[in-house]
Amino acid sequence: MLLYDSQVSGNCYKVRLLLAQLGRQYERHEVDVIDRSNRGELLGALNPALRVPTLVLDDGRALAESNAIIWYLADGTDYLPDDGFARAKVLQWLCFEQYSHEPYIAVARFWLAIARTQPTKSELDAKHAGGYAALAAMERHLSSSRFLVGEQYTIADIALYAYTHVAHEAGFDLAKHPAVAQWLARVASQPRHIPITA
Amino acid sequence: MLLYDSQVSGNCYKVRLLLAQLGRQYERHEVDVIDRSNRGELLGALNPALRVPTLVLDDGRALAESNAIIWYLADGTDYLPDDGFARAKVLQWLCFEQYSHEPYIAVARFWLAIARTQPTKSELDAKHAGGYAALAAMERHLSSSRFLVGEQYTIADIALYAYTHVAHEAGFDLAKHPAVAQWLARVASQPRHIPITA
Repeated sequence: MLLYDSQVSGNCYKVRLLLAQLGRQYERHEVDVIDRSNRGELLGALNPALRVPTLVLDDGRALAESNAIIWYLADGTDYLPDDGFARAKVLQWLCFEQYSHEPYIAVARFWLAIARTQPTKSELDAKHAGGYAALAAMERHLSSSRFLVGEQYTIADIALYAYTHVAHEAGFDLAKHPAVAQWLARVASQPRHIPITA
Repeated sequence: MLLYDSQVSGNCYKVRLLLAQLGRQYERHEVDVIDRSNRGELLGALNPALRVPTLVLDDGRALAESNAIIWYLADGTDYLPDDGFARAKVLQWLCFEQYSHEPYIAVARFWLAIARTQPTKSELDAKHAGGYAALAAMERHLSSSRFLVGEQYTIADIALYAYTHVAHEAGFDLAKHPAVAQWLARVASQPRHIPITA
């Protein structure tokens, strides 16, 4: 398999982390996340949204969207439950991540730690408000649950871990989210865990 | 089943449309999408994101996120393929919808047609730029495909139809997207289709 990847992207890290835990081999093609001028040429035939990660299977078929990729790779393994309702709850958290978490925490991190642009105070305040609302939702849930879906580590945890564990790079303070902090440590202690820098 | 619903929400319409096509019975509880002051009381125990749609099954279990709900309801029916890769492609389009389409087209529609707020020109321009990028991605794909995933109508089509077919309410002009326009007509002609107002 070939992964169009970015070392600094949390969305790409979700795929790399799961592949490491599954013990799967793959090649990487590093893609620039700041200069995007060659995206059409590079990804036009593979991913309508022209984003990374994009995964090309050995038979040439391509799959896009980080959460769709990890779902596909996890299906039939311990990282995605068999039960229909439990699977739907995993998907609920994947959707939550893409809609209510990533657009705030990942974008603020991109501004402050990756692209090093200068957002206005009101732009950054809006990202922090949205991101803290997402962290509050996770804190409520994780106060009574070891993992996001029941007692089992799943791709829901991988998806939310990706940007939550680097939220401090986006100016977020997790001190008021003890259940989230404990969950981060629990995720990092899973077998074959790798850091985002790996 | 009980659906916490909003008549004007495209995200809720996805669920209502699929339930109509599946011939499933359910109750509705209309939720205000402008005054959200009672959301914690109403949905706090059911949905960490406090959003509609939220579906409560007959056994009391709750499921949130529109695309997770339609996935759960469609699983095992003609609206979600059995093949693993085709399922992943459906999920790819569901993720695309929530990340690259809904935050632009649905939010602009909410401002202009639902809440009737007064966005600044630069705020609206940003939503139109993002929304047209999503429509361009759909146009490229639908130029050579009858439906979003192969030749079969699936929940990927339901999810993208929801806000694309009301994009004009958000100030979008589909005249330059003929493949999208033809696909909208194809979706609307499916058996047991209902309009968003139903």
